[in-house]
Amino acid sequence: MTKLEMTEAIMAAKKSSGLSWEAISDKVGLGPVFLTSACLGMNSLKAEPAQKLCDLLGLDGDTALALQEFPNKQWEQIVPTDPLVYRLYEVVGVYGETIKAIVGEKFGDGIMSAIDFSLDIDKEENPAGDRVVITMNGKFLPYKSW
Amino acid sequence: MTKLEMTEAIMAAKKSSGLSWEAISDKVGLGPVFLTSACLGMNSLKAEPAQKLCDLLGLDGDTALALQEFPNKQWEQIVPTDPLVYRLYEVVGVYGETIKAIVGEKFGDGIMSAIDFSLDIDKEENPAGDRVVITMNGKFLPYKSW
Amino acid sequence: MTKLEMTEAIMAAKKSSGLSWEAISDKVGLGPVFLTSACLGMNSLKAEPAQKLCDLLGLDGDTALALQEFPNKQWEQIVPTDPLVYRLYEVVGVYGETIKAIVGEKFGDGIMSAIDFSLDIDKEENPAGDRVVITMNGKFLPYKSW
Amino acid sequence: MTKLEMTEAIMAAKKSSGLSWEAISDKVGLGPVFLTSACLGMNSLKAEPAQKLCDLLGLDGDTALALQEFPNKQWEQIVPTDPLVYRLYEVVGVYGETIKAIVGEKFGDGIMSAIDFSLDIDKEENPAGDRVVITMNGKFLPYKSW
Amino acid sequence: MTKLEMTEAIMAAKKSSGLSWEAISDKVGLGPVFLTSACLGMNSLKAEPAQKLCDLLGLDGDTALALQEFPNKQWEQIVPTDPLVYRLYEVVGVYGETIKAIVGEKFGDGIMSAIDFSLDIDKEENPAGDRVVITMNGKFLPYKSW
Amino acid sequence: MTKLEMTEAIMAAKKSSGLSWEAISDKVGLGPVFLTSACLGMNSLKAEPAQKLCDLLGLDGDTALALQEFPNKQWEQIVPTDPLVYRLYEVVGVYGETIKAIVGEKFGDGIMSAIDFSLDIDKEENPAGDRVVITMNGKFLPYKSW
Amino acid sequence: MTKLEMTEAIMAAKKSSGLSWEAISDKVGLGPVFLTSACLGMNSLKAEPAQKLCDLLGLDGDTALALQEFPNKQWEQIVPTDPLVYRLYEVVGVYGETIKAIVGEKFGDGIMSAIDFSLDIDKEENPAGDRVVITMNGKFLPYKSW
Amino acid sequence: MTKLEMTEAIMAAKKSSGLSWEAISDKVGLGPVFLTSACLGMNSLKAEPAQKLCDLLGLDGDTALALQEFPNKQWEQIVPTDPLVYRLYEVVGVYGETIKAIVGEKFGDGIMSAIDFSLDIDKEENPAGDRVVITMNGKFLPYKSW
Amino acid sequence: MTKLEMTEAIMAAKKSSGLSWEAISDKVGLGPVFLTSACLGMNSLKAEPAQKLCDLLGLDGDTALALQEFPNKQWEQIVPTDPLVYRLYEVVGVYGETIKAIVGEKFGDGIMSAIDFSLDIDKEENPAGDRVVITMNGKFLPYKSW
Amino acid sequence: MTKLEMTEAIMAAKKSSGLSWEAISDKVGLGPVFLTSACLGMNSLKAEPAQKLCDLLGLDGDTALALQEFPNKQWEQIVPTDPLVYRLYEVVGVYGETIKAIVGEKFGDGIMSAIDFSLDIDKEENPAGDRVVITMNGKFLPYKSW
Repeated sequence: MTKLEMTEAIMAAKKSSGLSWEAISDKVGLGPVFLTSACLGMNSLKAEPAQKLCDLLGLDGDTALALQEFPNKQWEQIVPTDPLVYRLYEVVGVYGETIKAIVGEKFGDGIMSAIDFSLDIDKEENPAGDRVVITMNGKFLPYKSW
Repeated sequence: MTKLEMTEAIMAAKKSSGLSWEAISDKVGLGPVFLTSACLGMNSLKAEPAQKLCDLLGLDGDTALALQEFPNKQWEQIVPTDPLVYRLYEVVGVYGETIKAIVGEKFGDGIMSAIDFSLDIDKEENPAGDRVVITMNGKFLPYKSW
Repeated sequence: MTKLEMTEAIMAAKKSSGLSWEAISDKVGLGPVFLTSACLGMNSLKAEPAQKLCDLLGLDGDTALALQEFPNKQWEQIVPTDPLVYRLYEVVGVYGETIKAIVGEKFGDGIMSAIDFSLDIDKEENPAGDRVVITMNGKFLPYKSW
Repeated sequence: MTKLEMTEAIMAAKKSSGLSWEAISDKVGLGPVFLTSACLGMNSLKAEPAQKLCDLLGLDGDTALALQEFPNKQWEQIVPTDPLVYRLYEVVGVYGETIKAIVGEKFGDGIMSAIDFSLDIDKEENPAGDRVVITMNGKFLPYKSW
Repeated sequence: MTKLEMTEAIMAAKKSSGLSWEAISDKVGLGPVFLTSACLGMNSLKAEPAQKLCDLLGLDGDTALALQEFPNKQWEQIVPTDPLVYRLYEVVGVYGETIKAIVGEKFGDGIMSAIDFSLDIDKEENPAGDRVVITMNGKFLPYKSW
Repeated sequence: MTKLEMTEAIMAAKKSSGLSWEAISDKVGLGPVFLTSACLGMNSLKAEPAQKLCDLLGLDGDTALALQEFPNKQWEQIVPTDPLVYRLYEVVGVYGETIKAIVGEKFGDGIMSAIDFSLDIDKEENPAGDRVVITMNGKFLPYKSW
Repeated sequence: MTKLEMTEAIMAAKKSSGLSWEAISDKVGLGPVFLTSACLGMNSLKAEPAQKLCDLLGLDGDTALALQEFPNKQWEQIVPTDPLVYRLYEVVGVYGETIKAIVGEKFGDGIMSAIDFSLDIDKEENPAGDRVVITMNGKFLPYKSW
Repeated sequence: MTKLEMTEAIMAAKKSSGLSWEAISDKVGLGPVFLTSACLGMNSLKAEPAQKLCDLLGLDGDTALALQEFPNKQWEQIVPTDPLVYRLYEVVGVYGETIKAIVGEKFGDGIMSAIDFSLDIDKEENPAGDRVVITMNGKFLPYKSW
Repeated sequence: MTKLEMTEAIMAAKKSSGLSWEAISDKVGLGPVFLTSACLGMNSLKAEPAQKLCDLLGLDGDTALALQEFPNKQWEQIVPTDPLVYRLYEVVGVYGETIKAIVGEKFGDGIMSAIDFSLDIDKEENPAGDRVVITMNGKFLPYKSW
Repeated sequence: MTKLEMTEAIMAAKKSSGLSWEAISDKVGLGPVFLTSACLGMNSLKAEPAQKLCDLLGLDGDTALALQEFPNKQWEQIVPTDPLVYRLYEVVGVYGETIKAIVGEKFGDGIMSAIDFSLDIDKEENPAGDRVVITMNGKFLPYKSW
């Protein structure tokens, strides 16, 4: 079973179950962003949560194994076209140099890890229109000399 | 005075002053990310903060006018190469589809605005290595039919 | 049922029905551009118009569900080659900077939303050759400081 | 005098004059979008409006001649990055196929000319936020057999 | 029946018939370039010639309908690699600016239409080697002010 | 003197002279397309016409030498953006495969040379709008086996 | 039978036969490079050698016909990645300008034809390591004025 | 002195001297292709031939030093546009897979080195038109297992 | 059997066997990196190790033959997106010019061969986090004059 | 002083000094690869080694400050063309998937850091030709769930 077939199987079972990503992740015991990314083939799960997920959605052991495989993280579009995803790309273009300047002053020369990293999505209710709040939290990795 | 010349003038004056972006933005009364982005030519300032910034750094009125001009937001590298900025691009590639799925479930069909938007950078102290926390806050804009 | 299969089903049923997009959209109660874009997989419909459309064209419930899913808006060609679509791309290239200048003067620093947005297509009869009139109407979104 | 030098001369003179593109175009007797595009080097003016513009802004005859030269319409960014211009590109991507379908039904097989063409920008006041209205008007050009 | 399936059906029937594009177009009453381009899916035919073509080659009504659909004119290779087609691309690169200069002097500021357009291919016999003569004939479209 | 400086010198002298490309080429004894392409740096001239051109326009010997140098034929834009030149690129995309099919039937397997080649531009007067006629004439080069 | 199917049929028959390209081409009476390129779909054969090849390898008449069709010479990778092919691309990049300079001095302004052209591959035995010798032989085509 | 300045100095001195690349290389004692490539900045010379070249052309010691520096071999155009150079690129595209097949049969799995490599250009006189003969000679490098 | 089918067969058999790449390569008598690369279709094996591998994993003779075929080394992504592979690409970008400078000083003008080459991967245990050690070992190939 | 000016100053001083990168780095007390990368603008130095380097080469305080600035790590060529650097890119393409497979088996799902990272270059003497040995040593960063 490829990661692609795994994702299709999970999506179909999820639709039948009527459960949201948040509900599923609560039951599996992982955050919804991480769990969703694993189901979409962009992260791997350990054996236990993989099994829990499959039990919850009535999926077989092949799916549980496919969830544990280490994914090749590939995307097709160098510049994403979906408006929601493009806006994130635009933020990187507009604010990338600024983020580098501020991180440099606060932490020194280095980067924010995208591996020792988490990302959360919250809803901030607001009478002028609700707001999406995305929080990225990555370990600062300083450049070292040798 | 072009935006590019403006940025060079500000960078030189800032280095002479010994002030950090945080210190400057505190005195000007704006957040450090927004203020820095305006100084780097990616946002415009209103007349009052532009003047305050120039007074603080000993810059002339041309710089204050240049800060008020509406910038053409352009970046050269379709895929950024600086490791700090690339990691953000990578996050968009790896988690873009996941963010779309979660936002869809929490808000409906729509996007997070990159215009009615703010971005903050914090330092989370951690004995295992400090962490960079980036918070994006954008208005949810639902697609409408017509 | 994927969006692609949905589009094929709708196109086949539309051809059998002999109805135009305008006639269909009149009966469904939506504008022809929005309705067509949803049928081509670039927008989602609410449950009611999705059902009306399927009733009108004799399509099953799966199609109605597929119409309600939130689409991934993707296009293949970075520069479109079809002459009709390329001319629109050319207009963006030739007049983009001009539109930015005029919108800046009329509204201040900001953009025209492509989400809180509608687009209409009209035919202007003209003895020297009929004319296509495309009207875009998008909310002005001002850049804000923070 | 190159088109680039011409644009710089006009921009400086316009800033000194304090006139808007609308005010200038009213006095010259052309629409503001066309006039602005000519000043930005994307269209040519006839001798009379070119002279009127230069008289109004106190520019010399070289500028008037440069305005009459036929421009090479070139843009650098295949995908524009400025958010205002990108949104227009996005509209072409999202609605291009739809526009082709509707134009096909209303007019037959052909295109909307981008040459025998005009574009206007209006402000629609709205308590929920003003709206940008862009109207494109191009001659329908039918494909012919031979 | 897609345009692709249509082209395959026509190519197979043409091979069986032993007829050349010139012979077919003579019988259908259209020029060989236009007719061939329609059969290759780059133009649409009116009902009558579509039917004539199908009668001539023994093709069914679906093919005749497919020939009448308005094609999406798409090509895969931004720079064509086939030597015959590349040479044409090279001519555009080498002589494009020259053609613009000469057309500008002969006609004023404008373009040659690629829609109100015909293209013919002739063989010029020559003892030093026969020559290909390609004649393009397109309506001059002047830029207009508004 | 580089080819670029040569072109600038010729353009300035041509503007002063008030002569058209056609008038200049008549006096030099070459076709206007070839001569213009040499002046724009895309072909080289023999010593005699180079000298004639310089005498006519009052240009010095360096210009005459520069005209005789063998040019590096380079263009910047893989897809040209100027509408006049883009339309030619579009013709190659839309009709390239068709031209290959017809040339194949008329001549056999081979190409039209872009080197042993000429290109002419004519004006066809027409009450419905004048027409641009571009004629390309290239030697057929058959593929040979070995 | 497409060219792709033809190549697969030939490759399978060649493997069964145990014959090398050199052995096959000797029997067919053509050079091994040309014959191989035709079998890989990059050149066409005349009827006689096509038939000989099919007789030799026990292939049917469809294959012989497919070998005679005029190929669309297309390659997928703009920059080839296979190390053997990339080295050839690298040679063009490193020595292209040099070759132009030397050919210019030896022949005048013009090109080496890639159509009236042959290419041979030899093995030069050498105790320090055998060497690959590639010889290209193309007609010089001078640019002509008109 | 950069490699670019070095090339300009050599080209100017060569033009003054009236010597051809062949004549220069004869006197320096290197092949014309290698010497020209070093002068164009794509190879380095040892001290002795560098000095000989500078003595011959009356160039100073800085030029001799610049000739000895190890060049960064960079080219701007991924697909070359000059017709002479493009034809070589085309040969790689059309015959690359064929060359790989023949080299594989003659030598085994490996490549032709582009470093332990030489390239020569000869003129083959021919009444039907002279021919350019390019000979590449590179060491075969077999892939090894480990 | 294509290389792709070969890889799939090997991956399935390897999973069933429960053997790691290291264990397999030990038994076959080759290094794990080279053996894995051959199984992934990026190198060829000699007959003996190919047979040993197939015996070990219970694969048929077709797989053994496919392993011996000379691969076309192709990759799809010009810039790799998987974070592990991208980091290697980043190292080339950040340190490429530095490596060239150091190799130049230590060895002279030349390159490190990627053909007469080996690559090994080791694990360096470290209480602060284990480390990946990648060692590349390639023959220095000096540029030669001719 | 920009990083570019800094690099030029260092390169000129280094050439005058006659010191190699190895000799300089020995005296400064850093490894040659890291030190060279900092001098080429791809890493920053701490104050002390920056001062030591400038003292050694007789450079002023501005250079020492420029060495301490945090660089924007940018490279121009998406695919490097210099043969030495390209070979490294080729290694990533040919062995990237293999490295991922082996690292996955040895360490689990994660990456080799390019930040907590060192790279060394050694010369391995060999009678069959000396060999370049490049050793990369990066911390393994495991993907974590959250």
